[in-house]
Amino acid sequence: MSSKVCIAVHGGAGVLDQNEMDEELKKLYGEGLSLAVQKGHQILLNGGSAIDAVASAVTALEDNPLFNAGRGSVFTFEGKQEMDASLMDGSNFKAGSVAMVRNVRNPIQLARKVMDESPYVLLAGTGAEEFAKSKDLPFEPDSYFFNEKRYKQWQAVKDSGFHRLDDRAPKNLGTVGAVALDQKGNLAAGTSTGGMTNKRYGRIGDSPLIGAGTYADNQHCAVSCTGHGEFFIRVVAAYDVVAGMSYGNLTLKESTDLVVMKKLLEMGGEGGLIAIDRSGNIALPFNAEGMYRGWIDLDGVMHVAIYSNELTMNNEQ
Amino acid sequence: MSSKVCIAVHGGAGVLDQNEMDEELKKLYGEGLSLAVQKGHQILLNGGSAIDAVASAVTALEDNPLFNAGRGSVFTFEGKQEMDASLMDGSNFKAGSVAMVRNVRNPIQLARKVMDESPYVLLAGTGAEEFAKSKDLPFEPDSYFFNEKRYKQWQAVKDSGFHRLDDRAPKNLGTVGAVALDQKGNLAAGTSTGGMTNKRYGRIGDSPLIGAGTYADNQHCAVSCTGHGEFFIRVVAAYDVVAGMSYGNLTLKESTDLVVMKKLLEMGGEGGLIAIDRSGNIALPFNAEGMYRGWIDLDGVMHVAIYSNELTMNNEQ
Repeated sequence: MSSKVCIAVHGGAGVLDQNEMDEELKKLYGEGLSLAVQKGHQILLNGGSAIDAVASAVTALEDNPLFNAGRGSVFTFEGKQEMDASLMDGSNFKAGSVAMVRNVRNPIQLARKVMDESPYVLLAGTGAEEFAKSKDLPFEPDSYFFNEKRYKQWQAVKDSGFHRLDDRAPKNLGTVGAVALDQKGNLAAGTSTGGMTNKRYGRIGDSPLIGAGTYADNQHCAVSCTGHGEFFIRVVAAYDVVAGMSYGNLTLKESTDLVVMKKLLEMGGEGGLIAIDRSGNIALPFNAEGMYRGWIDLDGVMHVAIYSNELTMNNEQ
Repeated sequence: MSSKVCIAVHGGAGVLDQNEMDEELKKLYGEGLSLAVQKGHQILLNGGSAIDAVASAVTALEDNPLFNAGRGSVFTFEGKQEMDASLMDGSNFKAGSVAMVRNVRNPIQLARKVMDESPYVLLAGTGAEEFAKSKDLPFEPDSYFFNEKRYKQWQAVKDSGFHRLDDRAPKNLGTVGAVALDQKGNLAAGTSTGGMTNKRYGRIGDSPLIGAGTYADNQHCAVSCTGHGEFFIRVVAAYDVVAGMSYGNLTLKESTDLVVMKKLLEMGGEGGLIAIDRSGNIALPFNAEGMYRGWIDLDGVMHVAIYSNELTMNNEQ
């Protein structure tokens, strides 16, 4: 039993181009990431569980309109927010997830209820909302989720004809997530998203899918992904990191690099992931221009970064 | 390039107790499995692709009211049929899946359209139905899906109070699926289901989830699962068979046994899977009382079985 803890969060691999990013905005992103990672870390320091730390950190990111999850979710083709979230407890392989939910204030808290208080793993749509109501989870009106910037993004895309199902659809790699190691050596992971701008036809990405967007196994690692979801589903990205370690005896760095820098890259799957192993090593690889990320390592030192040229990508010790 | 082909299908691990099964019913199940496996096999013999053979075999099972998929789907809590399906082409890692679709005659054909004619992998609910309409796929009225036996099953469960979200919910492991190896050495897998009787809250199982219920990779194997979906999701069952072979150098039999007879069994996850590797080995392990299954091996010999005491479980050569 280790008394050392660590945690990492991401705010998506869909970062602004460096020339569009100004210092003030950068500061806001940094503050959002810091707040989330510190909230989770405080729980870990107090002896709380990894799953509680993950849920708390993801909730903080969902509440921040800067990130594409919860309050800051993008608009669908119909001009709505449809959110997905999942989380997994590496101590017992329990998992919960929700897809296509509307007006639920914190989808990650709903995923937690699915895990803790239902025999199911994945609930979707109005059925999942009905379950949320039965558990008295807070709902918010559309106005809570309305965001001028997201609305303009959607209008721009909608007007330019990108609402069709074709490859010209714009990339939107916005997601949030967290992974944590607690004092008892338990690992957990969670992910939440508003999905792709202007998504249509009930499209679901990797974020709510256990194995694709989220996975945790105490014996190996906890993983939360962000990126072009269809590719992450096809390579079963989050679980593949675990499989590389469990069957292939790869290190966390080797296994995450294989998935992000080789398998996904060769397929054209843009994005990244955050992962923590049972020894508290942290890996945060991405093959995009950047990935909003923050972490507090085993020594309690906090790091925040956006682009690849700001800090070394991995922080393994 | 091998000119040898093989194919396997399943009709679910939720078989009738042997004392409830009479000879006439057994014959009907056997005919349904034979028809499906022969349809797929004929495509393979004619030089068709594994993905076409899988789609054809699964379509035949969806059209048969005996199996819990397509026409024979069970009733949800609201007294509707909500169907899930997925398929994957091991030659290029392309995949398509649909969840919670109603009135679509063949969900596996819709999953195929998602794979072939959209940039998405997973579409759900009314959005997926809208996509189906845009592709002119056939829809059927509720009466097409109405089945006296399923209706009585649902009524019995509903009246006995099993509609609540608790562990007393009855097991329903009905699913159909197919895996195939074609003359070019390509592997493919597909799965389709009506889900759990009396399911509620938009519950989605493993069948439409790439990695959990379905996976195919030409270098290793193609897998279609059937069983208590929540457990198959948590162990990422279909992809885990591939991972055991790719990272762990396990044989098909070793890898499928590890997943079904150890990982799932220890967790309490009842069910089974069918798998074919690149050499044409077939494995059909299950930890339930039986699994409706049929296969045609590399020598062109057809086999059909339901219970474990009828035939050896695996047919590796």
